[in-house]
Formats: sequence, structure tokens, C-alpha cells
Amino acid sequence: MQRDPQDFDRVLSSMCTVPHPAARDAAMRFLSDNPGDPATYPVIAELEDDVVAMLGDIVGLDDPHGYVASGGTESNIQAVRAARNLADTDSPNVVAPESAHFSFPKAAEVLGVELRTVPTDADHRADLDAVAAAVDADTAMVVGVAGTTEFGRVDPVPALADLARDADALLHVDAAWGGFYLPFTPHEWSFAHADVDTMTVDPHKVGRAPVPAGGLLARDSRVLDALAVATPYLETRSQATLNGTRSGAGVAGAHAAIDAQWPTEYEDTYERQQANADWLAAELDARGYRVTDPVLPLVAADIPTREFDALRDRDWRISTTAAGETRFVLMPHVTRDTLARFLDDLDTVRD
Amino acid sequence: MQRDPQDFDRVLSSMCTVPHPAARDAAMRFLSDNPGDPATYPVIAELEDDVVAMLGDIVGLDDPHGYVASGGTESNIQAVRAARNLADTDSPNVVAPESAHFSFPKAAEVLGVELRTVPTDADHRADLDAVAAAVDADTAMVVGVAGTTEFGRVDPVPALADLARDADALLHVDAAWGGFYLPFTPHEWSFAHADVDTMTVDPHKVGRAPVPAGGLLARDSRVLDALAVATPYLETRSQATLNGTRSGAGVAGAHAAIDAQWPTEYEDTYERQQANADWLAAELDARGYRVTDPVLPLVAADIPTREFDALRDRDWRISTTAAGETRFVLMPHVTRDTLARFLDDLDTVRD
Repeated sequence: MQRDPQDFDRVLSSMCTVPHPAARDAAMRFLSDNPGDPATYPVIAELEDDVVAMLGDIVGLDDPHGYVASGGTESNIQAVRAARNLADTDSPNVVAPESAHFSFPKAAEVLGVELRTVPTDADHRADLDAVAAAVDADTAMVVGVAGTTEFGRVDPVPALADLARDADALLHVDAAWGGFYLPFTPHEWSFAHADVDTMTVDPHKVGRAPVPAGGLLARDSRVLDALAVATPYLETRSQATLNGTRSGAGVAGAHAAIDAQWPTEYEDTYERQQANADWLAAELDARGYRVTDPVLPLVAADIPTREFDALRDRDWRISTTAAGETRFVLMPHVTRDTLARFLDDLDTVRD
Repeated sequence: MQRDPQDFDRVLSSMCTVPHPAARDAAMRFLSDNPGDPATYPVIAELEDDVVAMLGDIVGLDDPHGYVASGGTESNIQAVRAARNLADTDSPNVVAPESAHFSFPKAAEVLGVELRTVPTDADHRADLDAVAAAVDADTAMVVGVAGTTEFGRVDPVPALADLARDADALLHVDAAWGGFYLPFTPHEWSFAHADVDTMTVDPHKVGRAPVPAGGLLARDSRVLDALAVATPYLETRSQATLNGTRSGAGVAGAHAAIDAQWPTEYEDTYERQQANADWLAAELDARGYRVTDPVLPLVAADIPTREFDALRDRDWRISTTAAGETRFVLMPHVTRDTLARFLDDLDTVRD
């Protein structure tokens, strides 16, 4: 029985999207190459080095250290792991706003690190006083989010960097989703804006690379060194990645996607999706829903459960925040026409 | 500048291979689906359930619990993590033969677990006396390897299972590479042969699925439960995988590969590659090299460094064991003709 992949036309809440055509072609060509074994597969290893350099351009970092990870979760786990291994304490903690992705609780559980989750402010951004109160001598890392999963908020990265520096902790910025939109905004989020140590930035989200193509970047090589384990029977001596065998399709696809789109096409995508977000927010507001203002192309609105369920029944792929707001993630595949059809269905089902 | 993927014709030491044509087609169709978000992408989630069931058939386990992981490293890390979380001790240890893959030291470092590496016997298999001596009340897991990376050896799994049971520890079998060859051999390695608790078995190696398609299987659902973290803003409540977003290409590719090849085509591949291994071993032995007898399609031989380097210079993709033997991994893409050409080159470069 032939089964069909998801039709992206109705996917409004996922942070996955349709890969760029050039990325799709590259993924197919390099489907069998393993960047985890660079001596056997040298071409894909070169392409990975290029991708890391290209990501450095996007996030304002000359001479970046890093690799193409399986996704944001791996990058976040690895950043916490490096901070744990570099910290001069037996009981390291990580301070993160409650808006941080669920991969941070996962990282804490996996790595045996204490996660100190602190409240966000009225605009869903990390509360600096709360972060300052949670940080202590055992803090290995402070986390800022540049484009939160629930509300698309950008934490005050320069101020968080100051707090981290005062505590001799690393500052990690999770820009897994936001990193390919933020270069075209006035937000201060990148290695160029603050003393950021590590960053998660995923080509396979807004970058339109195929999955798996995440990115872990670091300012200092000691972060990667803190992750390296010995690798007998590969021709290279050590491996800093969490996984062993890795996807050539992801690396080659990321290379092709960024090469084709950075910066012009990415900027066009940002402008289009921010306009779509602003339009959708205004339309929902006009219908009386409470809407969280989109500072990036992500809208949240308090659509009642009955209407939400009715829209799911009409095959709209939507999901909610922890507090119950419906999220609309303006990924590159989302069109104004799709949003208009969604609003038509909303008007049909609403009370 | 167009760069080309690795030509597999000369890849003799990698555990990667060329995906099956049906797997390649399926991977392309499901390139954008995310099995990490099953409520948004229900079809790929169904395919993953099917893959887990198919893997159960291959490894002798009715009603398997598990998922399609990014590869053997993730599966091994996750098995150790589950054992750590289930163990009734604050200082858990894992006992593994020195033949275990380097993902076990990586897992131990990541997870804060003590790894007790014990010697292998004269045939490179786990030494049961050494395992028994290393196991104690804090042992969370005993590891057996079914098809070792260096020599293709199969550890005495039933005896290891007895040792694990006596210590109230889990038995994990790493069949990442061997799992798709072993069903056609008399080795005792599977869930059907012994009280195995968890297993790594990778469709993207001998199974000819595209990367990333590893497999983690467990006899008991409590193993997966021990890995689950809460997932706000996905429509499903928890996630037992190490990664978040995952590759639809890997899952759909694994489904298509196994559907096309299990069991007949896999058995043909095993018979062909075991014959190639036996032939290569005999040819190397006849030339005076010390050869490790291939009990699975993997040959190791003590080719001197100068000859090894000369063969690498002729673009043969070969690598060595920790002790320096050259490894030949008879993956599905390796042909008798390729091996004959390799031997011709060896005859040209040797002293």
C-alpha cells in the first residue's frame, strides 16, 4: 500500500518546511556519504567545513568552530555538555528562561546537570532579575533564546552575556528557529552583538535544508575540544559530535540551501513571512482573539479548544503553547492564500 | 564548483553503503516529514511503527518497543541511559568488552556512568570470566556485541545474559552492523536466543536504508518509559528519542529497504558477502598475511603500514583496527570484481 507524505499546505505549527529545490538535489547526490568519517568521505567533510563557515557569516562569527548536527536538540545537548565539562565544579547548573525549548530539560536529565528554569517577563522574554538571582558560582551556562518556540521572542542577549560573564559561565544562544530570520531584523542576538560563546542555528528549519541539518557553533575551539572522544578504526582520531555516522544529505543539502539563498532569498523570505505574520495577527485581532504581537514570523492567539479541535478535524496542522494558545509558525512554505483559507475555515467553525 | 560524492566502488572499510533503490525513492518522497512530531506527520509515524515491528521480526522479538534512531551511537547511548535511569544505585556502571564500539565510552562520558572495559579472549570475543569479575551490585548493564566493528565477532550472548540476570542488570546487544547478516547464520545473538533486554540494529548499515536510520529495540516498555521527557507544543505528550526533529527520509527509507529485502534479498546478500569474505581471507592468507578468520563478512589482515599507505594513495578507502590490522567490511556494495582489483593493486605495491 502506497502511503503519502504530509501535504505541507496545511502545516501551520511545525518548524519543519519544504527543502529548497537545490537542497533537495544535493541531498539526493550525497545520500550515502558519511561526514562522520571524513577520511573515507573527504568531499562531504569539506562541504561541512564550508557550511560551518557560511553559518558563521549568518551569525556574525569569524573563524567559527562547530559542525552540522542532527538538529537543535543535539546542538543544545552538546552545548550543555561542553559547559558541564569545562565548568570548575562538581555540581554544575544551567540557568534558562522557562521559554527555553524542552531539549534543555532533556539535556539536563541526560547529562546530570541541574536546570534552573526562571520566569519570563510580561513580553515572554527572559527576566534579567530572575536570571541574576538564579546564577551562582556553580553556573556553567546561561541560556538565551533568539526566537522562542512558543512566542518567537528574542531574549536580551547582550545583558544575558554580561550576567554569564560575571559568573564565569558560558552564554549559549538557541537560535535554532530564529537564526535564519534574525539577520534581517534590528534584534541584538548574535556573536557580533554580544559575548556569545555557543549557538544553536538550524539550517533545516527556516534555512530550508533537508532534515537532519542542525548547527552547533562556538567562538572558541575549547568548546569542541571538550566534546571530543577518541575514535579507533576511523582514520581520524577524534569526534566531537554526539552521533557517529551522520547524514551526507543533511550536510550537502545545507550547503546547497545556504549557497542558493544567503542573503537575498532569505531576506525576501523574512520580509514575506513577517508581513504574513503581521497580517494574520491583525486578522485574528479583528475577530476578537487575544493575539501575541509577532516580533518574528510567529503568531500565538487564544483560540478556544472547541474551535481548535474543529480546525484539526479539517486537517489543519496546528498545535498549542503550554498555556493553550494556538501557534502559527510562518515557515517559508506558508502562503497568504493558505492563511486566508485557514481564516475562512476559522470563520466557519467559530462560535 | 560542483563537487562529487564518494564513489563507493573503492570503499572497503566503511559500514555505510549504497541505499537500496526502493529506499532511495522512499527517502525522497518523505524528505520533509518529521517522525519526531507524530500528530503533525501521522503517516511517517505509522511507517515508523511498522519499521519497529519489522525489526522485531529480524531480531526475534514479538511486540517490540523502540524507535528509528539516528544511528548506532544514539541507540547505544539511549540503551545506557535507560539502564542508568532504571538502576537502583547512585553510581551505576556498565560492563563491556574492549571490542565494544567507541560509542560506549562516549555514552559513559555523556551520561556520567562508569564504563568497565574488560578484555576479549583469543578469538576477540568477550571473556566471560573477565565480565563476571567486573560485574557487581552497581552494574546497570552488560554489553555484548553481535558483529564487532574490528573483527566481526559475535559475543556469547546467552552466557552474557545469564551474567546480567544474576546481577539484576540489563543485557544490551549491539548488533548495529551484524543484525542484518546474523539471521542467516547459526550464531546465538538475538532476543529469541537469550534474555536480551535492549538491542541496537541499524537499517542504514547492512539493511541498505539511507542514513539516518538506526534502530533501538527493547523487550519491555519500561525501557522507553525511562527515556521519555515531556513535550509541550507538540501534540504528543512525551518523547523517548534523544533527538527532537528526526528524518522522515530515514524512516521511510528503512521501511522500503526492509520491505523490499527481508528476508530473501538479505539472505542472498549475506551468502554473497560471506563467500566474498572467505575468498578474500584465503587470497590474503595465500600471500602470507596473517588473517583473522571471517565468522561474519568482515576480514582483518596485518598489511604493513607502507603497503597500507600505498593503497590509500591509490584511493582505496581502507582503515585499521586499534592494533593496526587493515579491515575489510563486506558491505552490500562490495563486489568480487572490486576485491580482485584491490588484490591486483596490493600485488603491485607489496614488498
